[in-house]
Amino acid sequence: MTEDLLYHVDGDLVAADEATVNVRDRGFLYGDAAFETMRAYGGDVFEWEAHMDRLAETCEVLGLDHGLSDADLRERVDETLAVNDLREAYVRLSITRGVQPGKLTPDTEVDPTVVVIVSELPRGGQGSQPVWSGPATLQTVKTKRVPDESIPARAKTHNYLNGILARLELRVTGADEALMVDTDGHVTEGATSNLFFVRDNALRTPSLDGPILPGITRRVVLELAAEEGIPVEEGTYSPEEIRSADEVFLTNSTWELRPVETVDGLSIGDQEGSSEAAAGPVTTLLSRLFDARVESAYCE
Amino acid sequence: MTEDLLYHVDGDLVAADEATVNVRDRGFLYGDAAFETMRAYGGDVFEWEAHMDRLAETCEVLGLDHGLSDADLRERVDETLAVNDLREAYVRLSITRGVQPGKLTPDTEVDPTVVVIVSELPRGGQGSQPVWSGPATLQTVKTKRVPDESIPARAKTHNYLNGILARLELRVTGADEALMVDTDGHVTEGATSNLFFVRDNALRTPSLDGPILPGITRRVVLELAAEEGIPVEEGTYSPEEIRSADEVFLTNSTWELRPVETVDGLSIGDQEGSSEAAAGPVTTLLSRLFDARVESAYCE
Repeated sequence: MTEDLLYHVDGDLVAADEATVNVRDRGFLYGDAAFETMRAYGGDVFEWEAHMDRLAETCEVLGLDHGLSDADLRERVDETLAVNDLREAYVRLSITRGVQPGKLTPDTEVDPTVVVIVSELPRGGQGSQPVWSGPATLQTVKTKRVPDESIPARAKTHNYLNGILARLELRVTGADEALMVDTDGHVTEGATSNLFFVRDNALRTPSLDGPILPGITRRVVLELAAEEGIPVEEGTYSPEEIRSADEVFLTNSTWELRPVETVDGLSIGDQEGSSEAAAGPVTTLLSRLFDARVESAYCE
Repeated sequence: MTEDLLYHVDGDLVAADEATVNVRDRGFLYGDAAFETMRAYGGDVFEWEAHMDRLAETCEVLGLDHGLSDADLRERVDETLAVNDLREAYVRLSITRGVQPGKLTPDTEVDPTVVVIVSELPRGGQGSQPVWSGPATLQTVKTKRVPDESIPARAKTHNYLNGILARLELRVTGADEALMVDTDGHVTEGATSNLFFVRDNALRTPSLDGPILPGITRRVVLELAAEEGIPVEEGTYSPEEIRSADEVFLTNSTWELRPVETVDGLSIGDQEGSSEAAAGPVTTLLSRLFDARVESAYCE
């Protein structure tokens, strides 16, 4: 799968199997690194500026002054896509604090390690096939989202064990995604996705006041809903409100919008609709609007 | 510093500068890895069995079935010490979930990556010089220890950003270690150390009921105190109780016992003792007992 790909590591394009970081890199030792997961459509990274803004926010939280310009990072990503002849791709850009002398306390002097990993995805836009094989099953887990006062959720870092522990809980049920609540029991998000639901024809999603990653796709969906005149509410919700919603869907950069079929084993929406797994009308509409937004990337 | 050292990576001894892991290793992507920091005295790792027990506990939390025996791991550590001709050393042993296909959810099928990093330390035991240059200054930070319900603190993993964020707060004061409280405001530990204090001639330390790493040195110190007949209390404490303690010290495998001179800028113990930075009597006694315990490693 990866055998023919080249990755971008610390300024060089190298074969995926030989793409490495030193074992003393703080990205490895401590997960001391910022990253973005992006999607390229027609050779261009979707919402590049938004990803760069969030990356900057993460680095601000980490006190990581990497000294690299957005243009420099873009060049590395573009080079990686070009050399692999990829126009439709998953792109993961990581910046670590690099190798430093001494111990846990970071030096202000940083020689960052920059890594770009890519893989092929299907074409997006109108009439496209999603990367997921079907609607998601969602399962509330016991693992609580890390509170902002411990590690701010707006920082997207290589510390991903909280989400991994949540996903491990799904081994029992085989569910696709974990529904994580915060330490107060309020709904936050999935391990790798933001959560939306529809009730009384309004689109609802947990507000960023909670420990929630400010997803780029989340923001685009909120924009699309506003443009379409769909009522939108960002609030605080219980798992029970998700289970009893008319529609539920998840978002992230690779999934785009992914409908949710069941939450904690309960079918979402019309209970009499048997096993028909069609997305509800608001989810369908927003998915089409999202595809149309993406489609414009192919026309530039 | 590291130029002449060999590290043990995935079964091979390699030059430190060429010791690497693949960028798709989950230890790098997500900090999905268990580790132990140990100290070798006279060529032998101190409290090896205790470290192996805790490593197993971490792997249990991570659902990481690496399939390696303690004897296998010991052989890798011993080989690394031997090839570097090191008898007094810092040893970091990491086991990652390796490279896996797919996404965040871990496969049960694991091809682990095992990394042993070493560096030279001074001799331990009776009359030894500590690795630290002086008593520690301790500063209460705003970053809260991650709650157990988010990531169990008994798991020692490559997700170390919580401690890094705590240490970053020290840039202002220049303090040596962060005093971290939990989300209820109770004292837990330092970013890389357990905390002890003395009041009314009793040795006190936060109980493991809180989000606290069960330190090996912490356990040895508690054993030594019990053997010596020093009253011991494991409890729940406020930062104010630490600031007003008669003595405060920190423990970890490399520091052993490190006295604390000031907490939040306030001198610990006799306020009239001016700038004299001598450790208090209980700290001094326990340090001597610890050195004696270590000394026995040289006589076997």
